[in-house]
Amino acid sequence: MSTYDKTVGIDDLPIRDELKGKSPYGAPQLDVPVQLNTNENPYPLPEPLVARIAERVAEAARGLNRYPDRDAVELRTELAAYLTRTGGHPVGVENVWAANGSNEVLQQLLQTFGGPGRTAIGFEPSYSMHALIARGTGTGWISGPRAEDFTIDVAAARRAIAENRPDVVFVTSPNNPTGTAVTAETVLALYEAAQAAKPSLVVVDEAYVEFSHRASLLPLIEGRPNLVISRTMSKAFGAAGLRLGYLAAHPAVVDAVQLVRLPYHLSAVTQATALAALEHTDTLLGYVEQLKTERDRLVAELRAIGYEVTDSDANFVQFGRFDGAAGSHEAWRKILDRGVLVRDNGVPGWLRVTAGTPEENDAFLEAVRALKKEQQA
Amino acid sequence: MSTYDKTVGIDDLPIRDELKGKSPYGAPQLDVPVQLNTNENPYPLPEPLVARIAERVAEAARGLNRYPDRDAVELRTELAAYLTRTGGHPVGVENVWAANGSNEVLQQLLQTFGGPGRTAIGFEPSYSMHALIARGTGTGWISGPRAEDFTIDVAAARRAIAENRPDVVFVTSPNNPTGTAVTAETVLALYEAAQAAKPSLVVVDEAYVEFSHRASLLPLIEGRPNLVISRTMSKAFGAAGLRLGYLAAHPAVVDAVQLVRLPYHLSAVTQATALAALEHTDTLLGYVEQLKTERDRLVAELRAIGYEVTDSDANFVQFGRFDGAAGSHEAWRKILDRGVLVRDNGVPGWLRVTAGTPEENDAFLEAVRALKKEQQA
Repeated sequence: MSTYDKTVGIDDLPIRDELKGKSPYGAPQLDVPVQLNTNENPYPLPEPLVARIAERVAEAARGLNRYPDRDAVELRTELAAYLTRTGGHPVGVENVWAANGSNEVLQQLLQTFGGPGRTAIGFEPSYSMHALIARGTGTGWISGPRAEDFTIDVAAARRAIAENRPDVVFVTSPNNPTGTAVTAETVLALYEAAQAAKPSLVVVDEAYVEFSHRASLLPLIEGRPNLVISRTMSKAFGAAGLRLGYLAAHPAVVDAVQLVRLPYHLSAVTQATALAALEHTDTLLGYVEQLKTERDRLVAELRAIGYEVTDSDANFVQFGRFDGAAGSHEAWRKILDRGVLVRDNGVPGWLRVTAGTPEENDAFLEAVRALKKEQQA
Repeated sequence: MSTYDKTVGIDDLPIRDELKGKSPYGAPQLDVPVQLNTNENPYPLPEPLVARIAERVAEAARGLNRYPDRDAVELRTELAAYLTRTGGHPVGVENVWAANGSNEVLQQLLQTFGGPGRTAIGFEPSYSMHALIARGTGTGWISGPRAEDFTIDVAAARRAIAENRPDVVFVTSPNNPTGTAVTAETVLALYEAAQAAKPSLVVVDEAYVEFSHRASLLPLIEGRPNLVISRTMSKAFGAAGLRLGYLAAHPAVVDAVQLVRLPYHLSAVTQATALAALEHTDTLLGYVEQLKTERDRLVAELRAIGYEVTDSDANFVQFGRFDGAAGSHEAWRKILDRGVLVRDNGVPGWLRVTAGTPEENDAFLEAVRALKKEQQA
């Protein structure tokens, strides 16, 4: 072990002022039997896919001494084929860009279209990484409004855009942590407002769209060069460990992010693994159907027990209400005491549970049933 | 295929002003028999290692539906063991951080210690990504001086630091594209100057250090919390396709970059592949010894032919002189005409050749021997 001065901490280093006193982002990782806190897909990859990954990675490993394909052309081609097949709109390799998780896609977009002296808006509560990636790229963050039922209030959102004139507008559909889908009409209204105000880039984060009752908003990119759809293989493809995010947009957007992407950002093993997973799309989308059924069951049973539930188009469900922030934290702790880890996303009065396997969901439902009885006692 | 307005280009999008008119970074990729342009290791990974990678990745793929270890503890522990064994200084997991290539390590450092309103300095010519990552993170870039023989002129460098008071100081050793190693005395002098001026973070980029005649500068982190050593598995480990960079520093630096790192930035397949490669360190370092021998042969033969050669501690050699920028570009083209791709890094009068296999180096030497004859005719 190295010896070093243990009295030196982060704030003794010459770090940026706005980072002082901050903590790293990340859900608490606890060793609990039933983990329904990070919206992971509970179904492991099928063994034939595991074997295919090993095969394709071995092939890639034979050329690992060389840099990977900087432009990931084969992977982007297959992602475009997947989007064309499932997204209701034909796209080609020139419309698609990929990176290490949708977080890196969003970071590249903010480096290109946001950054110092510029601002981005999101309608909160929403995916908290949007604000954090904004901070990490020096982009000012504007917290836009959401209606009481967690939908986007179009008139209020348009006003916020007109007043703040942001450079980047985030729309998350289905929204995390509420599960709320956004209609095409709402996105179009926000896009128009954003173009009138600046013009700005509108990023529709569709990380969970495969679980939605609604179709993808992908067709909206047609004729709108400032509209981007962002996606991930973490959820529907059951590959959170792979870190593969992508976007679809006008080819000029794909060209633009290449001005800031780190060269060779996407490793040969990541590209090989993602390509193997895409070969097994049908099997993986079968798991998505099972999870949608389970998600709908969670909504119905939570309501039957007496909880309030936000309509969900994702692989998770927001439920409450508890008595403010203290109430939801207390409920989180009591559910944890029963061996089930859900997520307190900091929305006062609400918690979020990921749709797991039927057995995991049963364990969760049992825990919240007991909690409700205790509260009514 | 999507239909879209082909008259819309990058500069029609609301991108940042400083990106307008820019092109993406990257060496020209040409289909040429002998590619000695990107400092790749010419030796493919041995088959037992390929098999081990497939095995470890299959194991990781079985849990791919879950997020990877956010803190990459096992990988950082093994990297620390490697550094302890080869770097002349004991380090532990708490001293080491890893990311997708040293480019991402450097990007995280600049997001933490550089960024808007701050500046970084490098002594040029040097690794051009330092300036580009500075631009991508909103960090002002200062081009520091280098002596005529491509060493760092300590007095001039100290003056540049005192005058500019940068927040981050880059020292590349061995330097790319010149091959020049930097002494511990020089680094210490620059570190002192940097602390007196600001204090600032000093980043010693040791991407090529395993090929050096000199020992690593790793021991300098002792007692210097603002000094960071950055490393990569791309070169010595023959794994450019893997994208695995890492740093060693005071634990507070490791804590600090976690404030800006994207959560789960390092995929489970990347971690598994890197761990497999580290199991085969001895074999891979054997290739390094062969490449050092070849590098020394290139230096000796180039000098025998009549070229000027910068002393090299890397797996590449800078040679010249040609008649300014036009002369080196013409020589680059003529060597390419003979089927050998070397790199014109934009250092007027000089070119850079990567040490390849003995056969590749023979082909290169034949090409430059012919070029010299032609020039003397």
